[in-house]
Amino acid sequence: MGQQTSAIVLISCKDQIGLVAAVTNFIHRNGGNIIDLEQHVDSQDHEFFMRVEWDITNFKIPAHQLGEEFNLAIAQPLGMQVRLCFSSEKPRMAVFVSKMSHCLFDILSRYQSGEWNVEIPLIISNHPNLEKVATTLGIEFHCIPMTRETRQEQEKKQAALLQKHQIDFVVLARYMQIVSGDFIRQYQNRIINIHHSFLPAFPGAKPYHSAHQRGVKIIGATSHYVTEELDAGPIIAQDVVPVSHTDDIEDLVRKGRDLEKIVLARAIWHHLQNQILVWNNRTIVFQ
Amino acid sequence: MGQQTSAIVLISCKDQIGLVAAVTNFIHRNGGNIIDLEQHVDSQDHEFFMRVEWDITNFKIPAHQLGEEFNLAIAQPLGMQVRLCFSSEKPRMAVFVSKMSHCLFDILSRYQSGEWNVEIPLIISNHPNLEKVATTLGIEFHCIPMTRETRQEQEKKQAALLQKHQIDFVVLARYMQIVSGDFIRQYQNRIINIHHSFLPAFPGAKPYHSAHQRGVKIIGATSHYVTEELDAGPIIAQDVVPVSHTDDIEDLVRKGRDLEKIVLARAIWHHLQNQILVWNNRTIVFQ
Amino acid sequence: MGQQTSAIVLISCKDQIGLVAAVTNFIHRNGGNIIDLEQHVDSQDHEFFMRVEWDITNFKIPAHQLGEEFNLAIAQPLGMQVRLCFSSEKPRMAVFVSKMSHCLFDILSRYQSGEWNVEIPLIISNHPNLEKVATTLGIEFHCIPMTRETRQEQEKKQAALLQKHQIDFVVLARYMQIVSGDFIRQYQNRIINIHHSFLPAFPGAKPYHSAHQRGVKIIGATSHYVTEELDAGPIIAQDVVPVSHTDDIEDLVRKGRDLEKIVLARAIWHHLQNQILVWNNRTIVFQ
Amino acid sequence: MGQQTSAIVLISCKDQIGLVAAVTNFIHRNGGNIIDLEQHVDSQDHEFFMRVEWDITNFKIPAHQLGEEFNLAIAQPLGMQVRLCFSSEKPRMAVFVSKMSHCLFDILSRYQSGEWNVEIPLIISNHPNLEKVATTLGIEFHCIPMTRETRQEQEKKQAALLQKHQIDFVVLARYMQIVSGDFIRQYQNRIINIHHSFLPAFPGAKPYHSAHQRGVKIIGATSHYVTEELDAGPIIAQDVVPVSHTDDIEDLVRKGRDLEKIVLARAIWHHLQNQILVWNNRTIVFQ
Repeated sequence: MGQQTSAIVLISCKDQIGLVAAVTNFIHRNGGNIIDLEQHVDSQDHEFFMRVEWDITNFKIPAHQLGEEFNLAIAQPLGMQVRLCFSSEKPRMAVFVSKMSHCLFDILSRYQSGEWNVEIPLIISNHPNLEKVATTLGIEFHCIPMTRETRQEQEKKQAALLQKHQIDFVVLARYMQIVSGDFIRQYQNRIINIHHSFLPAFPGAKPYHSAHQRGVKIIGATSHYVTEELDAGPIIAQDVVPVSHTDDIEDLVRKGRDLEKIVLARAIWHHLQNQILVWNNRTIVFQ
Repeated sequence: MGQQTSAIVLISCKDQIGLVAAVTNFIHRNGGNIIDLEQHVDSQDHEFFMRVEWDITNFKIPAHQLGEEFNLAIAQPLGMQVRLCFSSEKPRMAVFVSKMSHCLFDILSRYQSGEWNVEIPLIISNHPNLEKVATTLGIEFHCIPMTRETRQEQEKKQAALLQKHQIDFVVLARYMQIVSGDFIRQYQNRIINIHHSFLPAFPGAKPYHSAHQRGVKIIGATSHYVTEELDAGPIIAQDVVPVSHTDDIEDLVRKGRDLEKIVLARAIWHHLQNQILVWNNRTIVFQ
Repeated sequence: MGQQTSAIVLISCKDQIGLVAAVTNFIHRNGGNIIDLEQHVDSQDHEFFMRVEWDITNFKIPAHQLGEEFNLAIAQPLGMQVRLCFSSEKPRMAVFVSKMSHCLFDILSRYQSGEWNVEIPLIISNHPNLEKVATTLGIEFHCIPMTRETRQEQEKKQAALLQKHQIDFVVLARYMQIVSGDFIRQYQNRIINIHHSFLPAFPGAKPYHSAHQRGVKIIGATSHYVTEELDAGPIIAQDVVPVSHTDDIEDLVRKGRDLEKIVLARAIWHHLQNQILVWNNRTIVFQ
Repeated sequence: MGQQTSAIVLISCKDQIGLVAAVTNFIHRNGGNIIDLEQHVDSQDHEFFMRVEWDITNFKIPAHQLGEEFNLAIAQPLGMQVRLCFSSEKPRMAVFVSKMSHCLFDILSRYQSGEWNVEIPLIISNHPNLEKVATTLGIEFHCIPMTRETRQEQEKKQAALLQKHQIDFVVLARYMQIVSGDFIRQYQNRIINIHHSFLPAFPGAKPYHSAHQRGVKIIGATSHYVTEELDAGPIIAQDVVPVSHTDDIEDLVRKGRDLEKIVLARAIWHHLQNQILVWNNRTIVFQ
């Protein structure tokens, strides 16, 4: 878990001999103590992935030079794509909501209790009804209504707010609006959505109605990074709950709400822990 | 659970006032003691479903007249569709397999230990490799190879064997062949298949490959009655198991096998307990 | 689900012939339409349990006489214990909390969204820190600190508040205090607790520490009615989540919080739907 | 997964700087390609654990010298406890059973299909009833009845058979007998038991009866290494299944059987993959 200051490096590159040795040597010879190390090789694509976290209390390279030195010594020679972050950083998250409150309330409950290492300066909704909740907690709330005609213009307002608040990533907490490709490309692998079905079953609108119609015996929820294709982005977390013929659509909706908020929270947790790499529209979620 | 001799009636009809009272009165005034009663009303279609089981030890109507008397007194006046069976009956089941043995072995393990009230006189396969297992247990085994050209002819052989052995229902225990519409219509809601995915996700061939490609975090298995549309019949039971990026396709196949056999066994159990009604391509599974 | 006005009767008595017929006849001949009926027989104790709900829109007996007439016609002759309630009633619930907020927030989120048919006029805590949350929602909040010495006196204050607010049942939402036998007897089967383990494993204090120490691979949460023996009351709902050696105690606590709030909410739901009967320190939870 | 020949090293030692670097350097400079690496640090005890598997096709050190060289270069200087094995080795497993067949059948089904890299030369039972199954598959079967009086003498016969067949580890597949401390000490962390409850709930005899009595809403099964204290050894795997008031003890037993065989098989899988380390009566199960 580590309350000390630590550095985290996420790596992907073609698999080759000596990758782990190279990285762990770099850390060791500079006085770092590894807190956590996980690696994975995609056996089909021969792609190598790694997440390593180490204590930098006595590290010889100062934090602001670490990225450059790691690049020169390790990443460039070995052809690695690298993401570096520090446990001392507090990511800034915006929440997009519509009318339904259960995911937002769950997020705010965790936010207030300090469960997550995150700052939430901004909530955006296409409806005004959740404003009071946000402002009670001192979070800026903006109601930006959406229609097909105004989408382009309204998204500009959203983008300006995200920029103003230096938002690192966006959570769509049952935000029932299409997000444009332009917007998505600006926040690649940084928009987390919760879809109320066990994807790839029942993408799109009204999945509980479809689930009821099909007569499934289990329903699910799926959190994923948003890509331009609807409900087809890299899956971060999924969970399910059993149902039966005694559950009508209202029951599915009610049982599903509990899944949705928990599965969304798990995805946010992994994102905040810098545990996720995306490859070929799939995620590696280090533990 | 009841070791005594009992009668079971499964009912479906338009919902109306007095249905439960009519049925339970019939049982009561003839000296029957209800062991189990479940009812369900489909709130969209206003269709009524019921399963009632009662001890017939001291029942005034003899078993061979029960069907007729229940029809005259209750079912016809109230427009019910009725299925009557007795706990003393031992259904006769045939198993269709291909090369993979895990579902068949699981079925035979339960058969031998007496877990199920069933007779299995017949196993049919399109491959010879599981013959020894069958014959060791004294079960007739027939290898009936299938090609697109010979299907019609070979299905006739299958049908003749089913008839000869007075088979009540058929279990496709990872039988990797298409079954013709003619065959299916003869055994409506009496052919149970196990599909190796969480339907409706990944119907058809190679679902584990598709699941891996999509990067799901949970895989499933689905048992259902076979209908003419592939993998689209009424679902009886489903279950799932979590997976992660560390699982390659082989791992999914291995983990999936355990799901498949358990989920198939659950469906067979419900079928044998006469707990299943089919309505609008969905199942009511009474407990 | 039923938005219409309905009556619900919960019955327990010695099993005997004709019970279902007697009850359903009573309903039918007075013009009631059964919405839901479930019965259960304890096969060891030969005890009969039943829950029946019927539409009373056109019922010949007015609601205020229903209890008496049912007693005279059915319950007394057949030796039944009966609980009668109406879907139009809105139960009044009090929440007891300590410092931890996750269960309370979850309850309030459901309360505000209208998920439950309940009134929450009162929150009592032994700490002041959640006062603001309560008052924001217009719920009376009382901080009643507890020590071993003051328990008796302080419980009197609690009891007075419950009486003043006409509380029907109490939810201990991670209320980390012992409740006295006197108090429990006044609210028999009307105090719902959430315990943060898979009971009967790890009763008492610090179950996550014990779970970690034992090296379990799954942790759980248990909601139950409070009885005088600690963590030994009738279990209403349980759920679990997998853990591994990578989870330290903090991780168990974090993962457990999600279980606790969901499992507690399920118990409250069943209680509010009048689906629970208690027998021999076990629950029958009708669906 | 790796079909190539690989070496696997399992390490435990006090945590210290440079452990991963030391091991991965050793592998790298001798021409090994890491297939899989996992490490874990117990944050309470500051103990370090690691499992690393590497392709030895072009490894400079021959397999028969690898243990010695690794010890001299790495393990001794760093104070490591080390277990070395090779993917080309096929462990030899004995199965102990009593009358119940479901776990044994499940094991044999996997054995015959080649799911596991294992040799099963020996089955020992205190009852004769499963002899035919064993001998059909060409496995030696010995019936060694047990009474309190004859235990010591009969265990000598068992031990002699294990030695004769060069057994590496023993699986108690619902073997309903106490195993003596002497026996256990000879096979430390090499005897896998399946207990039919969610330990630590319901240790000892008749756990399904106790579960029913307590009214739990979920039942479980637990596989663990056998230690001298009954049902208290290091847990390898657990799983659960929901139950309800409708399930009597027979139902629990039936549903539990499916859990037992699957959970036992998972433990055997992890053991065969050399994924398990034991520390302080807990397991680290690398994935």
